[in-house]
Amino acid sequence: MLDSINIILSHTSHPGNIGAAARAMKTMGLSKMILVKPKNFPSFEATVRASKADDVLSEARVFETMDDALKEFTVIVGCSARSRHLDVPVLTAREISEKIVTDYHSQSVAVMFGTENAGLTNEELSRCHYHVYIPANPDYSSLNLASAVQLISYELRVAVLGNSAKDIEGEKVERVTAEQMEGFYQHLEQTLVDTGYHNRDHPKMLMSRLRRIYNRVTPDNSEMQILRGILSSIQKTLNKQ
Amino acid sequence: MLDSINIILSHTSHPGNIGAAARAMKTMGLSKMILVKPKNFPSFEATVRASKADDVLSEARVFETMDDALKEFTVIVGCSARSRHLDVPVLTAREISEKIVTDYHSQSVAVMFGTENAGLTNEELSRCHYHVYIPANPDYSSLNLASAVQLISYELRVAVLGNSAKDIEGEKVERVTAEQMEGFYQHLEQTLVDTGYHNRDHPKMLMSRLRRIYNRVTPDNSEMQILRGILSSIQKTLNKQ
Repeated sequence: MLDSINIILSHTSHPGNIGAAARAMKTMGLSKMILVKPKNFPSFEATVRASKADDVLSEARVFETMDDALKEFTVIVGCSARSRHLDVPVLTAREISEKIVTDYHSQSVAVMFGTENAGLTNEELSRCHYHVYIPANPDYSSLNLASAVQLISYELRVAVLGNSAKDIEGEKVERVTAEQMEGFYQHLEQTLVDTGYHNRDHPKMLMSRLRRIYNRVTPDNSEMQILRGILSSIQKTLNKQ
Repeated sequence: MLDSINIILSHTSHPGNIGAAARAMKTMGLSKMILVKPKNFPSFEATVRASKADDVLSEARVFETMDDALKEFTVIVGCSARSRHLDVPVLTAREISEKIVTDYHSQSVAVMFGTENAGLTNEELSRCHYHVYIPANPDYSSLNLASAVQLISYELRVAVLGNSAKDIEGEKVERVTAEQMEGFYQHLEQTLVDTGYHNRDHPKMLMSRLRRIYNRVTPDNSEMQILRGILSSIQKTLNKQ
């Protein structure tokens, strides 16, 4: 899945940043780079900075306009320092990564980054379905382009592969599927109806708030068994009495 | 709290990396850098790469040996590519950040990074209470030093300040305190005893597994209200019947 997410760099000025972004992507398992009108590409400097991620550069696609680059994508995310002037949802790097994994895993997704100095243009931002924001120090938020690509790629990797030590060892990644999460949410909702906490006729956003909470857990199989076991034990105790 | 966490760079070869690490730290609100026997410092190249984070460089402390650098610290974390040969717990960047915030917020914490080529030495790793691991692509895990510092600093920032859009706006960070989390765990445990799922005489690690699950949530106040409300409604329904 990581391999299907495209990173778009728009009008990048410094070729070194293109190379460093390629390296950042590859360390996190991303490989699909798109360049919209780069100032200088291909270039020796980009290749040097890419280190052994030069395969990402050689497979990068280059377009003259953002319009051409975006044609194939159904979900477009723009990285923005802070843009509340447009009517587009703003999510953090972690939130958008979880959203992409949960809601858009079968879609074609692009995450775009603007120029080093000015970021994305308003025109580019208006093409996005979401804006993503890296929560940086408000007094010094000057992340360079490759660092921004690094952090977003990292969050995408963790959202896809999970974050437990077990996952890391590469032995048995047992993170539950979206379908299992759905089963859990149905079980949770029914239990909350049984206890009287939740009223399906007056839901008051409860389930969507609970989804936000539990999506952050990204449980593995044995953790899901505990969560489901607790729900079952509550239901059983209610029925017994 | 971020301001009290020290980043130690050991025997760094390239001054540019020291500057880039300073920039990475400052974008995430960290400011305390310690250099152990850097090859070349202070240097013009480091200052240039630090951009406007040169205050981090000018306040950096330089030591001749790691022993001297570590004297003041009670919790020492070493960044390691993969080290299972030593009997030290290995956590991901996210796990260690949550642990520092939850368990060690009042202690003096240092996170150390080794050389660009070889990382930390075994001797340095053996001085650590924890090893931290960035979950990178196993086929290409070549994160550069500043990128590693960037990712760890980012995870520390998110662990301290939370990750919701509300936090980001800097308006009202309402992330719950460690004490409130403790209250929640006690309430959760009592509820699970009431339903019969949990037996305090045969605990089977249940509560520590649940802590691992819910620590990942880092709820804000209103989310905590929902979680506590659910527990209370279960207890009430059990008592009523």
